Amino acid sequence: MCPTETSNGTNGVANEADRVEIPVASAPRQNRSNPYQPVGDYLSNVGRFKIIESTLREGEQFANAYFDLPMKIKIAKALDAFGVDYIELTSPAASEQSRADCEAICKLGLKAKILTHVRCDMRDAKIAVETGVDGLDVVIGTSHFLREHSHGKDMAYITKTAIEVIEYVKSKGLEVRFSSEDSFRSDLVDLLSLYSAVDKVGVNRVGIADTVGCASPRQVYDLVRTLRGVVSCDIETHFHNDTGCSIANAYCALEAGATHIDTSVLGIGERNGITPLGGLMARMVVGEPEYVKSKYKLHMIKEIEDLVAEAVEVNTPFNNPITGFCAFTHKAGIHAKAILNNPSTYEILNPSDFGLTRYVHFASRLTGWNAVKTRVAQLGLTMTDEQVKEVTAKIKTLADIRPIAIDDADSIIRSYHFNLQEQVPAAGEPVPQVVA
Amino acid sequence: MCPTETSNGTNGVANEADRVEIPVASAPRQNRSNPYQPVGDYLSNVGRFKIIESTLREGEQFANAYFDLPMKIKIAKALDAFGVDYIELTSPAASEQSRADCEAICKLGLKAKILTHVRCDMRDAKIAVETGVDGLDVVIGTSHFLREHSHGKDMAYITKTAIEVIEYVKSKGLEVRFSSEDSFRSDLVDLLSLYSAVDKVGVNRVGIADTVGCASPRQVYDLVRTLRGVVSCDIETHFHNDTGCSIANAYCALEAGATHIDTSVLGIGERNGITPLGGLMARMVVGEPEYVKSKYKLHMIKEIEDLVAEAVEVNTPFNNPITGFCAFTHKAGIHAKAILNNPSTYEILNPSDFGLTRYVHFASRLTGWNAVKTRVAQLGLTMTDEQVKEVTAKIKTLADIRPIAIDDADSIIRSYHFNLQEQVPAAGEPVPQVVA
Repeated sequence: MCPTETSNGTNGVANEADRVEIPVASAPRQNRSNPYQPVGDYLSNVGRFKIIESTLREGEQFANAYFDLPMKIKIAKALDAFGVDYIELTSPAASEQSRADCEAICKLGLKAKILTHVRCDMRDAKIAVETGVDGLDVVIGTSHFLREHSHGKDMAYITKTAIEVIEYVKSKGLEVRFSSEDSFRSDLVDLLSLYSAVDKVGVNRVGIADTVGCASPRQVYDLVRTLRGVVSCDIETHFHNDTGCSIANAYCALEAGATHIDTSVLGIGERNGITPLGGLMARMVVGEPEYVKSKYKLHMIKEIEDLVAEAVEVNTPFNNPITGFCAFTHKAGIHAKAILNNPSTYEILNPSDFGLTRYVHFASRLTGWNAVKTRVAQLGLTMTDEQVKEVTAKIKTLADIRPIAIDDADSIIRSYHFNLQEQVPAAGEPVPQVVA
Repeated sequence: MCPTETSNGTNGVANEADRVEIPVASAPRQNRSNPYQPVGDYLSNVGRFKIIESTLREGEQFANAYFDLPMKIKIAKALDAFGVDYIELTSPAASEQSRADCEAICKLGLKAKILTHVRCDMRDAKIAVETGVDGLDVVIGTSHFLREHSHGKDMAYITKTAIEVIEYVKSKGLEVRFSSEDSFRSDLVDLLSLYSAVDKVGVNRVGIADTVGCASPRQVYDLVRTLRGVVSCDIETHFHNDTGCSIANAYCALEAGATHIDTSVLGIGERNGITPLGGLMARMVVGEPEYVKSKYKLHMIKEIEDLVAEAVEVNTPFNNPITGFCAFTHKAGIHAKAILNNPSTYEILNPSDFGLTRYVHFASRLTGWNAVKTRVAQLGLTMTDEQVKEVTAKIKTLADIRPIAIDDADSIIRSYHFNLQEQVPAAGEPVPQVVA
């Protein structure tokens, strides 16, 4: 499905050296049925998912992250305004300041529920329930890797402890999630037995975590769908991005019946991180535009990413979904031509949904004459199509020799147009010497 | 499945301000069966895929790209040395220089086959076959968006022209692929009819392209699997990354029987680009380590990415798979502890496969005492576990107040150790005033 909104063409010349905003026809986007849209599926929660935003927990595990309390509050308030359902915080057992920060954020009175993420251990749980959080996300490793090399506990011990911790947290009136760690390298029978046991004692959510980033989309679908048949509680999922599948895996989890997705801003977390909040929004708004746009303030994505990027001293990746500098830039001639006719031709995302604009590149060797024609009109000049094709050839000739800026292209167009007015024969004239 | 190689621990202190390489136990990685590894599937080409590397075609459509011939040759040679199967170049019909560059690259005598990407048009095909390429990648838009707003042709015209072009290219003894554009918004019956027709006239490959980046992994699987039953030729796939699924979609396409994946270095291309070569390697080496490591020079990924990043003036994204600066950095206490016991606990990729090393962060409020214990040994000091726990608490106390560098943590450790030697009671002493 593609967005059905009318695209907002924008006017005016941008300051960028080599590209320009071009006004586009405001034709209504078409909404014909897509033969590959999955047919209705009662398992799918693609149109009713919730976000557990973990920039202040998983994100704090990012190599460059150091959030002091004022920054944590700023991030928490921005995420709350954006509309996330939950905000997850570092365990108060990690350090004294982590505990104090957790208490302070609980007192902000945000709409989002506040969770903290703790080891499956009664001592940690007891510290956490005193902080004022709405719930605890409890976790323990279940793969043989983690059972042997991390905590050293067997499945019987894990199950017993999990039930104790869950019953304790529930006795305090708080929400509780129980998650395995490294779920995709855990034994399936062990996992299902454990989840079934915690479901029976009334856990609110079970969690599946691809802790090492090894899961592929169809593995995720299969595991979540199997689990959906075993437990009646909600299913939360957490995907690392080591092999570049964290957004796709989240989507497939929702298709299979997961209810909650863990995200962080720009995906920051251990190693190269987890499902990014902005990237997930790009994925979800394509599938379920009404739900996503009514629930989340998509135009805030850029400011939230800028806030976190500055706090952890990274640049937004050039190829980031939505906010990468080139996410809405069109360059090849056939792309530019079609975009100028109807943006839906080469855009599945509408930049105006995110408070952003598109650019059509018309100063390169790949330029087509349709983009130049639009630029000619934007400069207030009049030419026939044949004349536009001729001046396009001149632009491409120069672009073959060196990178050219918008000013170069404009100079060629103006010079060509001036010569037309002077009645000088246009054919065969030398390319004007313009400099960037 | 996880890599089976022995991990190469590295020694020595890195120059980074706040992290350090830590030698790790060289325990052989375990290779127990993973319950979520898909069972044998005769459709899957995950263990025998080929790469069509399109940095010099799709990548040239990236907003910042301007490759002169010397740079194109450098990139082509690097990709050839890496082991890609095909190198795809911009259409020689795009500009005179594009044609000359194409001819020059064909004369390099690379192992990789050279392709050029042309519109489904006899004029373009005639220019292309004269350049010396091994094959043509022919493309035309088939969605209603592109048929109405781009070329304006109907399916009967498309089929007729496709057959003409394919027969012409084959008559010249060259390889030919026919691809639809915007396949995931095209009518399924139209698509299958078209592919079936070109398969019958002996096309070498058909291509599926997610031109706008709207496809989700299970849609990809379904379409490729359906197509696999319709044509007998190879199947190439091309995935844009607008919604963050380009790597996952490529993987699912291979699972469904696709044979070729289009990539570009760092994923550069129109808008935010396509399946990145490095990211695809991260995904594939997890599933099929033997095939991937025997065929591709994985240790070249970083230098190829650096070459292209410099050429197009972007930074490698901080969270890039494999080469992002933090891809092998471990920070949280429980992660660091387990990694020190066995890297497979929190790593699905082995950094030494890519000529890289891992880092374990031990100077933060999330630090665990196991990481500090390793650091103590690395500094040549001796402490009991109780003493290490005590000095860890001191490090965390300072890290709660401000970001600390490795020097800070080392100063605390050395100061603590010095006091132990002096027989000064260790408990209750003030945190030393260290500065970064």
